Amino acid sequence: MKVGIVGAGSMTFIASIVRDLALTKSLHGITLNLMDVNPQRLERSYLLAKKYFSEMNVSIKVEKTTDMRECIKDASFILNLAFAIGYTNLGIMIETGEKHGYYRGIDATVWNMVNPYVTLTAYKQYVVASNIAEIMEDLAPDAWLIQISNPVLEISTLLHRLHPKLKIVGYCHGAEGGTKLLTTKLLRLNFNEVEWQAAGLNHVIFLTKLKYKGEESYHLIDEWLEKKAERFWRTYVPAPWQETLSRAAADMYRLYGLYPIGDTARSGTWKYHRNLETKQYWYGPLGGVDSEIGWALRLLLNQQNEERLNKAAFDSNVKVTEVFPPKRSGEHIIDFIDSVVNGTERRIVLNIPNEFNVISMLPTDIFVEVPVYVSGENLRPEPLESMPKIMYSRVFYPRIEVLEWSLEAFIAGRKDLLVDALIRDPRTKTNKQAEEVVDAILSLPFNQDMKQHYK
Amino acid sequence: MKVGIVGAGSMTFIASIVRDLALTKSLHGITLNLMDVNPQRLERSYLLAKKYFSEMNVSIKVEKTTDMRECIKDASFILNLAFAIGYTNLGIMIETGEKHGYYRGIDATVWNMVNPYVTLTAYKQYVVASNIAEIMEDLAPDAWLIQISNPVLEISTLLHRLHPKLKIVGYCHGAEGGTKLLTTKLLRLNFNEVEWQAAGLNHVIFLTKLKYKGEESYHLIDEWLEKKAERFWRTYVPAPWQETLSRAAADMYRLYGLYPIGDTARSGTWKYHRNLETKQYWYGPLGGVDSEIGWALRLLLNQQNEERLNKAAFDSNVKVTEVFPPKRSGEHIIDFIDSVVNGTERRIVLNIPNEFNVISMLPTDIFVEVPVYVSGENLRPEPLESMPKIMYSRVFYPRIEVLEWSLEAFIAGRKDLLVDALIRDPRTKTNKQAEEVVDAILSLPFNQDMKQHYK
Repeated sequence: MKVGIVGAGSMTFIASIVRDLALTKSLHGITLNLMDVNPQRLERSYLLAKKYFSEMNVSIKVEKTTDMRECIKDASFILNLAFAIGYTNLGIMIETGEKHGYYRGIDATVWNMVNPYVTLTAYKQYVVASNIAEIMEDLAPDAWLIQISNPVLEISTLLHRLHPKLKIVGYCHGAEGGTKLLTTKLLRLNFNEVEWQAAGLNHVIFLTKLKYKGEESYHLIDEWLEKKAERFWRTYVPAPWQETLSRAAADMYRLYGLYPIGDTARSGTWKYHRNLETKQYWYGPLGGVDSEIGWALRLLLNQQNEERLNKAAFDSNVKVTEVFPPKRSGEHIIDFIDSVVNGTERRIVLNIPNEFNVISMLPTDIFVEVPVYVSGENLRPEPLESMPKIMYSRVFYPRIEVLEWSLEAFIAGRKDLLVDALIRDPRTKTNKQAEEVVDAILSLPFNQDMKQHYK
Repeated sequence: MKVGIVGAGSMTFIASIVRDLALTKSLHGITLNLMDVNPQRLERSYLLAKKYFSEMNVSIKVEKTTDMRECIKDASFILNLAFAIGYTNLGIMIETGEKHGYYRGIDATVWNMVNPYVTLTAYKQYVVASNIAEIMEDLAPDAWLIQISNPVLEISTLLHRLHPKLKIVGYCHGAEGGTKLLTTKLLRLNFNEVEWQAAGLNHVIFLTKLKYKGEESYHLIDEWLEKKAERFWRTYVPAPWQETLSRAAADMYRLYGLYPIGDTARSGTWKYHRNLETKQYWYGPLGGVDSEIGWALRLLLNQQNEERLNKAAFDSNVKVTEVFPPKRSGEHIIDFIDSVVNGTERRIVLNIPNEFNVISMLPTDIFVEVPVYVSGENLRPEPLESMPKIMYSRVFYPRIEVLEWSLEAFIAGRKDLLVDALIRDPRTKTNKQAEEVVDAILSLPFNQDMKQHYK
C-alpha cells in the first residue's frame, strides 16, 4: 500500500504525519512517497521520515521524487500539502493589494479574512490540484485524495466538479482544536467528558452541540460571557490561532446564534477587520493571526519551525525523535487512512461533498465540513443539529459566493470576473482601482502563468 | 364579485385599473371597493372611478372606505397599492442616509439600487401588508392578493411565509415594458412578431429567449452592441425608466451572459452607482431614475400626475375619459382578474412562489418573476430557458441575501441585524457609522413605530 504526498517539503504537517505513521502499527509495511518541486525541502522531509522510522525501528519504506506522476502512480492515498505560491510571494501579493487600498490584500473578504488562504488569487493552488486530479484519473483512479493545503473549500469543490469520480476529502484541524480551546481554556471543562458537534464550511464552522457529562451545556458559554468574558478579554493576550477565545467570536455568537469555532472566528464581516485598530479591539494586542502583526509573527514562527526541521533532518548528531517526541500529533490524517484501510471506525471532522444533503439548505455541489464516521470505504456523516436560518443568509451564502466568484473566474479564465468580484469589495472606492489592482497582481514577475490564464 | 384596493389613493396604477375595468366587459357588474387612510386621495380615486364608469356607461359599483376590514371583507381580489412611507418621508430617509455617508440612502445596495423601493427600511410596507394578510385570513380567506406596491419581492415572500395558505401573486410591468423597449427602440423590431421570455426575481430579471418571426434572434443584440451602441449612447438621453437602453445594461449583459430587462438595469453592483458621475457615465445625463436628478424628476412627474388626477376627478367641467382616453393601459392586473374569474387563458409575467422549482437553482421559499399561463384558479408557469450558472452567484443570490437580511431583521425585531446588514455595505467606513445611521433613521419623527419595533 502506497501513500503519496504532494508538496511534501511543506513544513506544517510533515512532522505530524511522520510521527503518526510511526505510531500507527496497523499501517507499518506501507510505502511513503514524498514529492516536491523544491529538491532541498524534499530532501529535508525525506531525511526526517527516514531517520524517524529508523530510530523508531518502523518498517515504512520512504521514497522521494520531483515527478508528480511517480508520486501518484498506484498510490492508495494522495495527500496534497502543496502551497504553490509560498509565503514570500504571497506576502508580495498582499503588499501589492495594500498599495492599491486593499488592506491585507485582495483575498481578504467577507467570511474569508483568513488571508494567506488565497481565493481570488488561488490560481497556482488550483493548477497544482487540477494536475494531481488529472494524474490520479490516469494512474490511481481508485485512490483517495486528502486535500490539506488551503483553500480547502475551493480546491475540494473545484476538483469534485471537474473530476466527479475521484474520491476526495478535505482535512482541517480547526474544528476539534477550536472546540478544545473553548471548552478547556474558557469553560474549564474536562475535554474527555465533552460531547460536541461542529459543522458548516471549512473555516466557517459553528458549534451545533455542546454536552458535558451527558448534559446539554451550551448555557455554560452564555454564563461565561455574562460573568467572566470582559475581565478575560481585558488581560488575556490570545496567541495566533486562538481566535476562538476572542471578543469577535463572542460577537458572532450573539449575532448569529451559534458559537464560531477555530478559524471561523478569524473571519466574519469587515466589522472585525477594517484596520489594525479594529482588529486589536476584537482580537487583542496582536490583532489576530491575520493582521500585519500576526503575519510578521507567522513568518517568525515559520522560520523557527524551519530551523527545527532542518536540525532534525540534516544534523546527524541530532535524534529526530528528540526534536519530535513520539507522541500522537492530534491530527487525524493518518487516522483517516487507517480507518479506510483497516476498517477501524473513527469519528473525524472532514470536508465532504454535500451530495447527500448533509446540510440540506446548502447547495449539493460544494464541500461541507462535518463530523464523519469513517470505516473502510464507507463515509457516514453524522446527522446534524439544526442551525438558525439566519446563518445561511449572513454567513454561509456569502462565503459560498466568494467560492463561486473564484472558481467561475478560474474556470472561464476571465479577468473581468476577477474585477467584478472586487467591485463588490467595500475597500474598492473606484472601478479603476479594482481594475488596477488586478493588473498589478497579474503583472508580478512570478505571476506570468496567472496573467496568461486570465484574459 | 368584489375587488378591493388597499392604498387606492395611490397615483401610479389607479387610472390604469379603472380604464382597464371599463374596457373589460366580462367584469362588468362587479363591485370595486377603494380603501385608503388618506380621505382626500381616497375621494379622488373614488370620484375618478365613478365618473369614468358613468361616462363609459359601465355597471361597476364603486365603494370607498378608510376601514381596511370593510375593503377586504368577502372580496375575491385584493390589490395592494399602499406605499405607506410616502415620497416625502422616503425622501427624508434617503437624505438622512446621505448625511451619514450613504449615497442615495441605506436601501441602495447591491442588486437593489432601485432606492425608493425600501428594503432595510420597509417597516411600514411590511406592517400594512401583514395587516392585509391577517384580515384576509379572517374575512376573505379564498381571495387572491395581488401585491403591486414595492418591494414586491420582499412583501410577497414575507406574506407567503407567514400566511402560506393565502393565494398571493406579485405584479410588475417591468418585464414586458423593458422587452418592448429593447426590441422596438434598439432593435427596431415589430413587437407583434417578437417571441420572448424573461425570468428571475422582481427587478432582477433577464431576457432568456428572443425570437423574431420564429427565428432565434439574440444575436441581434450583439450586432447592435457592436455596430450601433456607442453612437446611440453618445447622443440619446434615456428618459426615466428607460435604463434597459443604457450602457449599464449592456455591461451587465457582457458580464453575466443575459440581457437585463426593465428595472434590472437600474440595479447591479456599485460599479454603476458610486456617485452621480458614475451613474451619468452608465445611464446618461440624468444618471438614471435613481440618481438625485432622477429623484427630483420623479417628484416633478408625481406632481404633474397628481394635478392630472385632481383635474380629472374634482373638476366637474372635465370629462375624465378625455384626460384618460379609453384605451387599454398595457398593464395586466385586470387581465389577471379576468383570466381567473372567466377562465380566459392569458400569459402574464407574474411573481409566484418558487415552490414548484420554477427556477430550480433558487430557494423554494421565495417569489420568482416568470411568465405564467393564467386560466381560472390554475397558474401554470412557463418552462424556462436555462440561465448561465454565473448569474446565481453574482446576481440572484446577492439579491436574495438582501431580502433575507430585511425579513430576518423585521421578523425578529432586531436592530443589531439591521446594523449587521449595513456593516456589509461598501459605503460603511466605520462600525459606528452603521450604528449611527440606523439610530438616525429610527429617530425620525414619522418612524416612531419602527423605533419601537427594532430593539
